[in-house]
Formats: sequence, C-alpha cells, structure tokens
Amino acid sequence: MLLLIPGPVQTRPELRAVMGQDIAPWDNDFRPVYAGIRDRVRDLAGGGAETHATLPLQGCGHFMVEAAVRTYTAPGARILIPMNGAYASRMERLVRECGRVPVPLPVPDTRPVTGEEVAAALAADPGIGHVAMVYSETGSGIINDPAEIGAAVRNAGRRMILDAVSAFGALPLDLGVQPEIDVMVFTSGKCFEGMPGIGFAVARIDRTVASAGNAGSWCFDLSDVYTHALRNSWGSFRFTPAVQALNAFAMALELHAAEGGQAARLARYQENAKLLYDGALSLGLTPYLERKHQGPVIVTIHQPADRAFALQAFVDALKSRGVLISNFHNTQAPTMRIGAIGAVTATDIKFAVEAIGATLDAMGISRREAA
Amino acid sequence: MLLLIPGPVQTRPELRAVMGQDIAPWDNDFRPVYAGIRDRVRDLAGGGAETHATLPLQGCGHFMVEAAVRTYTAPGARILIPMNGAYASRMERLVRECGRVPVPLPVPDTRPVTGEEVAAALAADPGIGHVAMVYSETGSGIINDPAEIGAAVRNAGRRMILDAVSAFGALPLDLGVQPEIDVMVFTSGKCFEGMPGIGFAVARIDRTVASAGNAGSWCFDLSDVYTHALRNSWGSFRFTPAVQALNAFAMALELHAAEGGQAARLARYQENAKLLYDGALSLGLTPYLERKHQGPVIVTIHQPADRAFALQAFVDALKSRGVLISNFHNTQAPTMRIGAIGAVTATDIKFAVEAIGATLDAMGISRREAA
Repeated sequence: MLLLIPGPVQTRPELRAVMGQDIAPWDNDFRPVYAGIRDRVRDLAGGGAETHATLPLQGCGHFMVEAAVRTYTAPGARILIPMNGAYASRMERLVRECGRVPVPLPVPDTRPVTGEEVAAALAADPGIGHVAMVYSETGSGIINDPAEIGAAVRNAGRRMILDAVSAFGALPLDLGVQPEIDVMVFTSGKCFEGMPGIGFAVARIDRTVASAGNAGSWCFDLSDVYTHALRNSWGSFRFTPAVQALNAFAMALELHAAEGGQAARLARYQENAKLLYDGALSLGLTPYLERKHQGPVIVTIHQPADRAFALQAFVDALKSRGVLISNFHNTQAPTMRIGAIGAVTATDIKFAVEAIGATLDAMGISRREAA
Repeated sequence: MLLLIPGPVQTRPELRAVMGQDIAPWDNDFRPVYAGIRDRVRDLAGGGAETHATLPLQGCGHFMVEAAVRTYTAPGARILIPMNGAYASRMERLVRECGRVPVPLPVPDTRPVTGEEVAAALAADPGIGHVAMVYSETGSGIINDPAEIGAAVRNAGRRMILDAVSAFGALPLDLGVQPEIDVMVFTSGKCFEGMPGIGFAVARIDRTVASAGNAGSWCFDLSDVYTHALRNSWGSFRFTPAVQALNAFAMALELHAAEGGQAARLARYQENAKLLYDGALSLGLTPYLERKHQGPVIVTIHQPADRAFALQAFVDALKSRGVLISNFHNTQAPTMRIGAIGAVTATDIKFAVEAIGATLDAMGISRREAA
C-alpha cells in the first residue's frame, strides 16, 4: 500500500525495522541516542547550543501547539492568528480553551498571509504580544512564509510561535536569524518521515527560562521540560515516551541526512507535488489552489461535480489499486487531499496518478470539474 | 536483555513483530481495530456499554491523570490525595499546577491507606469533592485498595479519580460496582504488556457529559474525546496517535486473554514478586516493605550498607549479566527497584536473582543489610 497522506507518512523499511525493540527510556545506552536527537534537531533548526534547546514531549502536533501557547504566553494574552486553514482554526480553539485570547486575522484559505496584513493587524492592536502561525497549512496545501511574517513581527517588536508541524525537515527554517521566534514545534511523523508519537519544540533558552510559571499545566510546561533535561549530562525524557517512535526518529534523522538534508527533501516533495498537480489537471480535475500558491506538502483537489462521485467510495476503490489517501477533507469546499510527503518518489506519484485516473474511469466519473 | 522495570516492560515477540507497519489512524481497515480496543478495555474494567466509555489519549500516565483531573473536577476544586508514594507526590504537583487544590492525606509510603483514614479526612473537610488515588504505587511497591477506599468515598457522598496506571490488567477492578469512580486511567505499556505511547481512561458517560467545560485545555478534555468518538460508527482517534503502539495494544489484549485474563496475569506477577522478595532475603538483602504490604508490581529493596555499593555501577554490572533494572529510586531511603511485571516468568526471575547475587559477589558487597 502506498500511503499518500500528510502524516503519518509512508516510512522506509530501515525505519520500520527498528520499531520492534523493547527499550528502557532512562537506560544509559539509550540516553546518548536521545541526546543526539535533541542536538541534531536544534542544529537543523538553526539554533545555537547556547541560545536554543530542543524540548520533546509525548504526543501529537496539537499537544505541541498547546504546550507552546501555554509556556510562552501568560493567561489572558492576546495572540494574533492568520486564519487561512483548518489548522489555524484549530489553533484558535486551542488558544481560547487554554485561557488565552485568540485574535483572528481573516485570510482566504487559498493563499498565504502577507507581511503587510500581519503588520497592519499588529499596528492596530498594541495589546497583541504574539503571532501564532501555521507554516504548512495541510487544510488546503498553502505555505505561510515564516521569514516574511517573522520580519513583520520583529519590526513591530512582537514575538512569534511557529507551528512547523507539517513543514520542518522539508521547508527552510533558520531560528538563528529569526530571534522573534520564541518556539517552533513539529512532530516525528511528518517531513522527517518518522513514526508518530513524539513532538518536538525548538525554543529560545532565555525565553523558556523567563516563561516559567505561565503554563498552568505540569504536563504541557516546556520550561519544566527544559529544567528536567538539565538534570544530568545526557538528559532523560520527562515521563515515559512512545520510546519506539523516539528511537526510530534517530534513524529518520540519519535517512534525512543521507538524502541530502532539508534541500534535497524539499526538492523531492516539490517534484511529488508538481506531478500530483499536473496529474490532476491531466485527468480533468481541478486543483484547489492556484499553482503559484501550491505548496509541496499536500495537493488538494476539488471533488468532481459528477453525481456518481462519493469520497469514501473513491478512497476505497483507489485503495484496492494500492493507493491510500485521506477519507475526509479540511476545506470548506468538498475536496480530496493527497499527500506529497513521506518516503515516496516520482515513480510512486506517477503510479498514483494512473491509479486515480483508472479509478475515476471505473467509477464512470465523466464530469470532473469542481463540484 | 531481561527488562525488569515497572514499565515500559518486556514485551512478547508476537507484539514486537507488529510494530513495524505504516498505519493511517482514520483508515477504515484500522477503525474496527481501534473500536475493538475501546470495547474490550471497557468490558475488562467492568463498565457497561450504556454507562461507561473508553477514552484514549496520546501520551503517558501523567497526561492521563492531568486529563482526568481537568475533566472531572472544576478549577479550584479540592481533591484529597493519599500521600503514600512518589506517584502520589507527582499527582499533588499536577493537581496544583492545573489550578485545583490538592489536599494531601499523609500516609507512610510503606503501607496502604485505609478506608478509615479517608473517611475521617472527608468528614473533616466537606469541601472536598473528589479523592484521587494511586492504585499501584510503584514508588515503593504498595497497593492501595480501590474497593476499600471507594466504599469510604461512596459512603461520604464524594467521587473518585483512580490512577490505575501500573495496576489495571493485573489487579482487580470492577467499575460496575463502584459508581463513585468517575474515571480510572492506565497506559498501554504496563500490566497489559503493550508498547508505551497510548493512555486510556474508562469513565462514566453521564459524568463525562456533565463535565464538559471544566478542562481549560482542548487537548486534555476527555469530554471532547467522548464527543469526538461519537462522530461516526467506529470512532476515530482525536489527533494523530502513536498508532503503532495503539495497533500493538490490540495484540496485547489478545495475549492477555490467551493467558487467562486478569486473574492469570495477577497470579504470574504475584509469583514473580514472591520470588524476588524471597530471593532478596536469600541474598541477605532487605526488602523495603513488610511482606504483608508487598504488591505484585514492583519489589523495592534497600541498597546494601556496604560502602562498595553504588547504584549505577550495580545496574551496569547486572546489565552485563543480561538483567536491566531501574537506575534510580523513588523512595526517601536509598533503594533498588525491580519490576515484577511484563512478559517475564518465574524462570526469568530465578535467573535474575542469581544474576543479582553474582553481581553483588563480584562487586565484593558483603554488608548487605539496609544502608
């Protein structure tokens, strides 16, 4: 089965092979593995050993975003959120439920937010301390640019929380030149092509220390994760993690480096996404985004107008041909979401496009324009 | 390597063999697996299909306890905690940091709390709504009895949150006859001998619905987990889980049933613990607990008085003989903690006791009474 979803992704056999091991997380043979992961992640994010720390946590992307919001903002803080996708909407809910005040910045989910829009929103509301932004919005497939938005945040003297969940590992990021970013978060099962179960924050040490007392949650307090990590020379995970996924992430980092790092991975995903986009057009389907706004992580395609089309039936039929895509959509218009990330190549994508075409034919879907 | 720690535990090869698979959590082939886990867990806990629901969450035991406290009590609620071990101390911190008021009930960490003590504490403080108790306290190895304490809670018209993390699966529990228990929590990697990464709550449906709005955290809101699970016929996991550990838990439940269920598992652990206890005595060591208070989950032993003894050196030397125990202790007095749980048998424990004796001999530890 070829898994074409925006995470958890298709992994490589070398990675799956290391999952079947019993591991004691605090064991002195495992601690260096864990410390190595933290150092390598910090380096890849452009963080300095003196300025930034990798702060891992059990769980998923939502947990990381909540931990970041709780740790780096105080209760009642006003947080600007560019609202151009499903994950921004979830962030708004998450911010509100943990006792902060989300300030939504309306943006269509078909294009990135601009620096001008963020600058204007910050100028209009001096009470906003942080901007929280989704880097790779897998609701639609657009990419918000942290360099551009970060500059607007920096110029306004504000701070930033970056949800890089479906971005980091493939899309560029350099925390060393973006001091306005308090923290960025991502997870093990997306662009690093690891197994799901572990989340990571890479954060400024000074802001992490200064933020002690904000969280209102021991479990989601990243300043406590930082303090805990300092307890001994290698550090150990605070509470029991999904240690098999954590151990596999060390392998994921090796495979990432062997491929050529972020630039090579981005190039592969870009080719995957282009083949999916072109393939959709060639089949008479309509991509959800204009080509200039199409990111390399997920290609969203309008469901065909044909009355014979039903998403679950299509997903089931496509699956019988060996390709598994999402059986739900995260856009307001009815769409299909096809992941371009994971251990998949151009050959796989070409196979998938052919399978999509054959499935549409077999289902008798002739009216393929947007529903 | 023989893993003798109170979780994550040594697993069986059949279970490790299913870890190396890519799985889409919302896939219709996986949803019945997930639904089957929820039903089976609820049944094992004595919950009825109309009265109780299994509510899973990403993460670890601490996450589950925080989610339970946040969901089933309101901010500012007073919660009585019998303080007889390290995990009770952690619960006190966790309760305080999430904005509830812990009311500690002092109890020595060498014996269980009694129903009389809890009844007296509840009578003295009518403002206490919930008792939160650790069933299996792996700090020392004692077992607090939820039936006895639950009766005291019920008679006082109060409610209960049960941390059954290192208990459920081996120690008895019947939520059907303990209506005072709003929620009990446990994790995948303890007495069910699964892989770590997934936590479970089994909770009263009426109390879960009535508790909506308490949590102050979307991620830790078990009432939202319940609502989410109702969205379609099979239910799907809210946010991406450590899905390999979740899938392996289905195998763990099969192995649990094949062994003979809770009673058979308890009998094996009891034999393991007895062999460890007797073995410690036979080697001249001093168990931390009186035999009558020794539970079947972990046997804690005083570190020897001999000046040549150092815990990490002992753990390293024992590991070189094929047995891995914890390299830290959770009692006030310096101890060694040896797990009796996991996929280990009397043969393994006898091997471990011999290895401990050989290691002490090789290190020249002659004064073996308590330090």
